[in-house]
Amino acid sequence: MRHFYRLSEFSMEEVQRFLQRAAEFKLNPYSNCLDRRQLALIFLNPSLRTRCSFEVAIRQMGGGFSTLEGQSLWKLETQFGVRMDEDKTEHVKEAVGVLSRYFDGLGLRSFARGENKEEDLADRTFTTFMDHSQVPVFNMESASYHPCQALADLMTLQELFGGLKGRRLTIIWAQHPLSLPMAVPNSILLAATQMGMDVTLGHPQGFEIQPGILSMAEVLAERSGGKLRIINDREEAVRDTEVIYAKAWGGLSRYEDPEGEKALRQQHQNWIVDSELMALTRRAYFMHCLPVRRNVVVTDEVIDSARSVIFHQAENRLHAQKAILEWIFS
Amino acid sequence: MRHFYRLSEFSMEEVQRFLQRAAEFKLNPYSNCLDRRQLALIFLNPSLRTRCSFEVAIRQMGGGFSTLEGQSLWKLETQFGVRMDEDKTEHVKEAVGVLSRYFDGLGLRSFARGENKEEDLADRTFTTFMDHSQVPVFNMESASYHPCQALADLMTLQELFGGLKGRRLTIIWAQHPLSLPMAVPNSILLAATQMGMDVTLGHPQGFEIQPGILSMAEVLAERSGGKLRIINDREEAVRDTEVIYAKAWGGLSRYEDPEGEKALRQQHQNWIVDSELMALTRRAYFMHCLPVRRNVVVTDEVIDSARSVIFHQAENRLHAQKAILEWIFS
Amino acid sequence: MRHFYRLSEFSMEEVQRFLQRAAEFKLNPYSNCLDRRQLALIFLNPSLRTRCSFEVAIRQMGGGFSTLEGQSLWKLETQFGVRMDEDKTEHVKEAVGVLSRYFDGLGLRSFARGENKEEDLADRTFTTFMDHSQVPVFNMESASYHPCQALADLMTLQELFGGLKGRRLTIIWAQHPLSLPMAVPNSILLAATQMGMDVTLGHPQGFEIQPGILSMAEVLAERSGGKLRIINDREEAVRDTEVIYAKAWGGLSRYEDPEGEKALRQQHQNWIVDSELMALTRRAYFMHCLPVRRNVVVTDEVIDSARSVIFHQAENRLHAQKAILEWIFS
Repeated sequence: MRHFYRLSEFSMEEVQRFLQRAAEFKLNPYSNCLDRRQLALIFLNPSLRTRCSFEVAIRQMGGGFSTLEGQSLWKLETQFGVRMDEDKTEHVKEAVGVLSRYFDGLGLRSFARGENKEEDLADRTFTTFMDHSQVPVFNMESASYHPCQALADLMTLQELFGGLKGRRLTIIWAQHPLSLPMAVPNSILLAATQMGMDVTLGHPQGFEIQPGILSMAEVLAERSGGKLRIINDREEAVRDTEVIYAKAWGGLSRYEDPEGEKALRQQHQNWIVDSELMALTRRAYFMHCLPVRRNVVVTDEVIDSARSVIFHQAENRLHAQKAILEWIFS
Repeated sequence: MRHFYRLSEFSMEEVQRFLQRAAEFKLNPYSNCLDRRQLALIFLNPSLRTRCSFEVAIRQMGGGFSTLEGQSLWKLETQFGVRMDEDKTEHVKEAVGVLSRYFDGLGLRSFARGENKEEDLADRTFTTFMDHSQVPVFNMESASYHPCQALADLMTLQELFGGLKGRRLTIIWAQHPLSLPMAVPNSILLAATQMGMDVTLGHPQGFEIQPGILSMAEVLAERSGGKLRIINDREEAVRDTEVIYAKAWGGLSRYEDPEGEKALRQQHQNWIVDSELMALTRRAYFMHCLPVRRNVVVTDEVIDSARSVIFHQAENRLHAQKAILEWIFS
Repeated sequence: MRHFYRLSEFSMEEVQRFLQRAAEFKLNPYSNCLDRRQLALIFLNPSLRTRCSFEVAIRQMGGGFSTLEGQSLWKLETQFGVRMDEDKTEHVKEAVGVLSRYFDGLGLRSFARGENKEEDLADRTFTTFMDHSQVPVFNMESASYHPCQALADLMTLQELFGGLKGRRLTIIWAQHPLSLPMAVPNSILLAATQMGMDVTLGHPQGFEIQPGILSMAEVLAERSGGKLRIINDREEAVRDTEVIYAKAWGGLSRYEDPEGEKALRQQHQNWIVDSELMALTRRAYFMHCLPVRRNVVVTDEVIDSARSVIFHQAENRLHAQKAILEWIFS
C-alpha cells in the first residue's frame, strides 16, 4: 500500500518520472487508471484549486469520489486515551477505519492549526490518518507539506526552462494580513533543492523555515548538486534570479507569542513583489501557488504581466495529480 | 465561445428553437451532448431547484460537474486595484482564471447583494465572471436576470396554450417578509414581451421595475407585436387575465432607505393571490418560480388548486437547461 | 411505488432475502440496478457513514445522485396551514414535489429534533416526505427508525453466528454527554426480535424505550419465537450474553424537563462497557453503530479488542443498502 505524503521520499529519477507522466496526461487527459476506484476527498480546511483539480482528475481517470468538507465533517478527536465527553463527535481512528472500508484511497487536507507547535511540526493529523488507514492516503496539503503543489511547480519550471538543474529560483517571503502555514514554502524549497536547482530563500529575520526542513533541504541540495543560500535582504535575495516564487508565511514565534509575531510581520510591509524588485532579476518569471492577496503579496502590475505564470502552475496541478494518482493505484 | 447571460440577446426564432429542443429533451432525457465536458456549478447563494436540475441535466447529458457552494467558497474580491488586506481571500480574476483551466464551462449564481445599487443593477459579479473566464459562463440567476427560469416559464406557457402570442399574462407583485432581488420579475417580463404576449405588470407604487428593464421590455413588445401595461391596482391588474405569475420583490428604495422600504412593503399585506383574486380572471393558471411563502404570497387554496402549474414550471427547468447547455457546447 | 421506511414492515423471509442479496453484493460489488436512476440524498442532519456508504453504493450500482446537506438546504416548513412569514424559506410540500420531478428516489435523514415529543414519536418529517413524494423515499435515519443500520447489524450477526434465531443479544444503554435520539436502539430492538433472537434490553430507570416500540417488539418476538426481557441492572443485563450492542440515548423526559433528564443521565456514569462488564458475558462480541465516544460509552480496551466488530457493522452498511436500493427500484 502506497501513501503519498511528501516528494522528498522519492528519488530524483522518480520525480522525473512523475513529471514525464504529468506531461503525458497534459496531452492525453483521459485514462482508465481509476476504473472502479472510489476515493474520498477530505477537506478539514477549505479549498478551491485542490478540490476542483482532484475532482476533474478523478473523473477524467474513470474513478468515483465523495468530497467531504465543512459542515459535512464533524469534529474528529486525534488524541489517544482521552475521555471523549466534550465537542468531538468521533475519533479519527474510527472515522479513518470506516472510510477505509468504503473507499480505495483517502485524500486529506489538514492545515497547521497554529495552536500546538509540536503537533503541527509533527504533522500529527496527517500521520494519524496514515497510521490508521487500511487504504492509501494522499496529501492534499498537510501542516508541513503540499507535495501536489510542489510537483505542479516543478512541472511548470520544467516547461519554462526545459530542465531544472542549476536554474536560479528565489523563494521570497511576502507580507500578509494572516499568519499562514508553511506547507507551501517547505515543499517548493525541498522540491527545488531535490532537483538540483540553485535556490535562494529570502525572508526577514524572525520568519525562518523550521530547522528540520532546512537541514533536509541542505541534504537534498548536496545530493542533487544543487545550491541553497538564505538571505535576509529583500533586494539581495532576488538579484539576477530567474524565478521569483512569492509566498507569505507566519513566523514560528506565533505559537508562543501571536501578538508579537503579528507586530513583527507588519514591520515588513515592503516585502511585496513589485516592478522595482522584478527589475533586479534576469527577467524572472513570477510564481505563486494562489490564492494570492493582490497589492499585498504582489502588485497588480507584476501578477498581470507576461512573466506571471500563476495560471500555468494552477493548471499543472491537474496533470501532476493524475501522475500521483496513477502511481498510488498502479 | 458562447456565454449564456440573458434571453433578450436571442431572437424570437432562437428562443423558439430553445423551446423546441427543451420539448424534445422532455421526451428523450438522455444524450451525449456533454460527453467529456467538465462543468463547475458555482453558487454564491443557496439553491435547491437550480442545483438539482442542473446536476441531473448534466449527468443525463453525459457530462461531469463540481458543485461549489457555501463553505466551499471563500470570499472573492470583485473590485479592481484594491489592496487585499481584509477578509477577501482571492480575487475573482484568479478564481475564474483557474477554474477556466479545469472546466469547460462555469455556471454561476450571484444574487443582488442589496448593498450597492449601481453594482447590482450593472450585474457586476456576473459580468466580471464573463470578462475573465476563458470558457463559457452560464447564468444560474444573477442580480438582474434568471434566464433559465424564464425559459422554463415560456415552455410551461407554450405547453398550456400551444402558443404564446397574444396570450394574457399578469406578473403581479406579492407581499414577502424579505426584500427580494428582481431577477425573476425582470426575466419573465422580458421573456413574455419578447415572445409577443399581452403582459400586465401589477405592483403597488414604490415597487417599480428598474427603468432600464422596463424600456427594454417596451422595445421587445414593440418588436414582437406584444403589449405591456403597468397597473398599480391589484384587482385591475388581473381582470380577465389568463395567467397570474406571482412574485415578491423589494423596492429599489431599499438601497438608500431599507427601513422605509420595509415599512412601505408591509403596507401592502393584501397583495396576496387568493381565490377572490383568481375569481376576477379568465380561469387563470397560477405560476410561481418557487420557493414560495404560503399564505403570504399565495393562499394554500390557490397554490393547491388544479390551476396551479408550479411543479410543471419547476420540472421544465430541467428540460430548458438541457437546451441551453446543448447550445453552449455545440 | 415502494417507500423504504422500517424493517418491521417486512416479513422474516423478506428480511432474510435482503440479507442474502447483501451477502451477494459483498462478493460482487458492481451491478446495473440503478442504471439511469437519479437519486437525491437529503441530510437534514450531518452524516459520515450513511452519506459515504450510500454514495459509493449508488456509484457501484450505476446510478447518479445529488447530495443535499447543511447550507445547501434551507429551512423547510413542515406544518400545514401556517402563514410562512418567518424563517422557513420553503414548504416541504413544494420541496418534495419538485425533487420528485428531478429524481427517481429520495433518501432522507431527519433526526428527532427533541423539541416536540408528539412530532418526534410520530416521525413527522419523514412521514410528510413520504406523503408528498411522487417517487420512493428511503430512510437514512428518521426520528424513530434507522433500518439501514439495523439491516447491516443483522448481516453482521448472521456472518458471526451463521444464523440469528435464539442467539443472545443485549442492547445496553450507555452514558453520553448529549441526549441522543432513539432511532438506533428502536431499530436494533425491533430487528432482533423480528428475527427470533433472544434479546435483553438493559437500561437505567428513566431511559425506557417508548411504549409503542416496546409493544411492537413484543409482538415481533412472539411471532418469530424470539424473546425479550428488560433489565435495569447493568451487570445482570449482560450476564452470559453473546453480543453486547451498546448505545446511548436520551430519556423521554427530555421533552418536558431537559435539565432533569440531563441530571438523571449523569447519575449513570458507570454505564460504560469495560473489560469487567465483558468478563460477565460468554465472550460476547461488542457492537456499536458509530460514531462512538471513547471512554464514555466504551473503553479503549474493549473497542480495540478482537471481539469488537464495529468496522464490520460499518462496512455492511454498504452491502445492506445495495439490497435495499435494489428492492426499491426493481
